[in-house]
Amino acid sequence: MRVALIGTGLIGGSIGLAARARAGAHVLGWDPDPRVRELALERGAIVEQAPDIAGAVRDAEVVFVAAPVGSLVETIAAALRDAAPETVVTDVGSTKRVVAAAISDPRFVGGHPLAGAEAAGVEHARADLFEGAVWYLTPARGNTTGVLYERLHRLLASLGAQPVAIDAEAHDRLMASVSHLPHVLANLLVAQVAGMLACEDGQRLPAVGPSFRDATRVAGANTAIWTDIYLANHDALIAAIDGLAARLAEVRSALARGDAAAVAAWNDRARADREALLGAGLVGGAGGEEIVELRAAVPNRPGVIAELALALGQAGVNMLDLALSPSEDNRRGVVALWIAGESQAARARELIAALGFPVARA
Amino acid sequence: MRVALIGTGLIGGSIGLAARARAGAHVLGWDPDPRVRELALERGAIVEQAPDIAGAVRDAEVVFVAAPVGSLVETIAAALRDAAPETVVTDVGSTKRVVAAAISDPRFVGGHPLAGAEAAGVEHARADLFEGAVWYLTPARGNTTGVLYERLHRLLASLGAQPVAIDAEAHDRLMASVSHLPHVLANLLVAQVAGMLACEDGQRLPAVGPSFRDATRVAGANTAIWTDIYLANHDALIAAIDGLAARLAEVRSALARGDAAAVAAWNDRARADREALLGAGLVGGAGGEEIVELRAAVPNRPGVIAELALALGQAGVNMLDLALSPSEDNRRGVVALWIAGESQAARARELIAALGFPVARA
Repeated sequence: MRVALIGTGLIGGSIGLAARARAGAHVLGWDPDPRVRELALERGAIVEQAPDIAGAVRDAEVVFVAAPVGSLVETIAAALRDAAPETVVTDVGSTKRVVAAAISDPRFVGGHPLAGAEAAGVEHARADLFEGAVWYLTPARGNTTGVLYERLHRLLASLGAQPVAIDAEAHDRLMASVSHLPHVLANLLVAQVAGMLACEDGQRLPAVGPSFRDATRVAGANTAIWTDIYLANHDALIAAIDGLAARLAEVRSALARGDAAAVAAWNDRARADREALLGAGLVGGAGGEEIVELRAAVPNRPGVIAELALALGQAGVNMLDLALSPSEDNRRGVVALWIAGESQAARARELIAALGFPVARA
Repeated sequence: MRVALIGTGLIGGSIGLAARARAGAHVLGWDPDPRVRELALERGAIVEQAPDIAGAVRDAEVVFVAAPVGSLVETIAAALRDAAPETVVTDVGSTKRVVAAAISDPRFVGGHPLAGAEAAGVEHARADLFEGAVWYLTPARGNTTGVLYERLHRLLASLGAQPVAIDAEAHDRLMASVSHLPHVLANLLVAQVAGMLACEDGQRLPAVGPSFRDATRVAGANTAIWTDIYLANHDALIAAIDGLAARLAEVRSALARGDAAAVAAWNDRARADREALLGAGLVGGAGGEEIVELRAAVPNRPGVIAELALALGQAGVNMLDLALSPSEDNRRGVVALWIAGESQAARARELIAALGFPVARA
């Protein structure tokens, strides 16, 4: 498989290393910074430098655009302009609505791997960066080409990632609460303590336990990347901030009136909510569970695989792999899906049937 | 050394295990719950069950009160009532002002180890729970007996902890920002995401990265313990909440007007502040640094060691050990202090000289 990387920093470089090591891919790369391209070549993240975007994507089967959020749309558009009709183009941006709104091409599938490292740059790239990581995909209902989605899903799974389809809207709303808001709060906690010490005369931060270090671990993350993310997702983030501020005011009021029952109930609810959220939501791939193969008959029209993947992703059903086989008359097709565990497979059958597609165990 | 534990749960039990294993102490214990006392004996956290508080403290040199914050004051008072004049009594409560205000006894030194475990109860007690942990002490200026403070400091250091003297006021303000507020925010983040999902039709939390799990790790911590902590420190916590809410409103406003420069500057400042706070403030004991011994001549009056320890603690100078030797006429004394590293030792000399005490390298 021929893979092109537009952008060969930490994420692009890690995709290159993983695609070469795990998928035997031939990886071309281009980066606006010639030193970064050179370093990617030295590190083995790419085997060939492309002279420009057009040269990188021309013969590629899969193109990864790993550019900053601020220049994503133009870079994706440039890649699509020069890519062949059978090439799938994806990106790795941390917010997805802006790109989804700007790009309407059946060859494009938005993407966002939940992986990163403390330090940026191809010098920190690793072939195992995506091992076990969730990799969101935002295919467009009624638009994304099924066979291209399948190819991308399979490649990501071979890199060790867990591809999960999600609406671009839902993705950004989710990220605002589970990622962007925690980053904002980490920054604010640091500012709060720095401000408190500044008010006392020459007081230094006394030794504190590891919990403050943990709580502020993501404070002051890469400014170039995060300013883009905050601004690209500012409306969802503001909604999350408003939600949090309202809840903060409620707790403050319970504390101010010394309402032990309300504080205790609030704390109990947090524990129950966290267990409900994480107990179920974070189970990764198979834990020794049986792999069930399902087959669904689907009409051969653009976007149908997107629809199916989104329905499963939204319900938290983890699709380990999928394969499309067109029927002879090319008007219908069969999708084979592999799901871990009987209960997830049963849920997948219900969801697929609800979309109106005949489905059965293979 | 004879050590008494009033309360033999996770913290009390771990003190018992560590004091026996590392300081060769004879450990007696009492707990209001007979099953907990029994279990502490079985686990080897104590070697003898006391019939009551009076029986536990009678012959003890050091008494640890490891009771819930809500019943701390009465339990400490009971221990002091029956303890000998030469016994030092301390506690392990997470807030310190309430106790400092209620107890005025030269034998009492408030304490707070920054250590804990996921699960409560003596069945999770460990001899190494305090290894490398900061252990705040809040001696009273002008009151705490130096020789008792010294004994406690030395015992804690032998348990592997790093004792740091701090004002009860400063302790609670610091904890409100570096511990209690992060706990509140973890609870709120969970509530925020649970609320968001509840608003979408039947949506489950899709797989998310480890960062949300990390950011909410302390959510819903033990309700009985934390309700007491939140309420005991409610005024400092409310001040911290108000500070955070004001900063949150500022960020919201920068996001709403799309002010990339303000967002970038805010994020840069968070990084710089975190480095300044944690780069210096969290360095633990010696990292291969030379240990410097200082000797200071101090008047032999109550509270003078508290004064000295507080001055060093406030400046972030880590006192590895201290030893008091009274002079022959008993009107003055010499304190020997061991400090890691030349620069910290130089700072300690300045601080001690500023208190008016002659000081020199040994």
